[in-house]
Amino acid sequence: MSQFENVTIVKQANVYFDGKVTSRTVVFADGTKKTLGIMLPGEYEFGTDTTEIMEILAGDLQVLLPGDSEWISISGKGEFTVPANAKFKLIVATVADYCCSYL
Amino acid sequence: MSQFENVTIVKQANVYFDGKVTSRTVVFADGTKKTLGIMLPGEYEFGTDTTEIMEILAGDLQVLLPGDSEWISISGKGEFTVPANAKFKLIVATVADYCCSYL
Repeated sequence: MSQFENVTIVKQANVYFDGKVTSRTVVFADGTKKTLGIMLPGEYEFGTDTTEIMEILAGDLQVLLPGDSEWISISGKGEFTVPANAKFKLIVATVADYCCSYL
Repeated sequence: MSQFENVTIVKQANVYFDGKVTSRTVVFADGTKKTLGIMLPGEYEFGTDTTEIMEILAGDLQVLLPGDSEWISISGKGEFTVPANAKFKLIVATVADYCCSYL
């Protein structure tokens, strides 16, 4: 789906890592939430509160999921799931556009 | 207003200047359009197709409007209007969060 309809979007951006990672929060009619974000090239560690499904819409990056020792490469489009209350690492090589769903 | 309700948001980001300026397009029930965007520090020149009202939600920047010789400084919150089919320049000093309306 290329767009989300009948949603609420929070005007103010979420800003992390001096703006190298930013997102906007989208709230759906059923109360579920997604963020649409941009990551500039760099290395990041994130923590989760809930299970997160990260859909990469564009960009080249590597992800190290919690408990893993092997990095996963994503080029262009891809998806990975991170369990709740966990940390994961990203090495972003080119500007990455993403959609994160919170379960 | 801190959020926009009953809107459509285009999933894919608009990416300019190697990702230093990015935005998401929000479409309202009446067909009007806004973009919610982020500008990282840097110097930029933009062109308009329609009249644009730029609302700065956060950030420190200077803007040179078309035909002007004096830069306007905005710190934190501010707003400026750019006529259609014109160019304007920005010097962004700190991460800027904005909402642009197209008339």
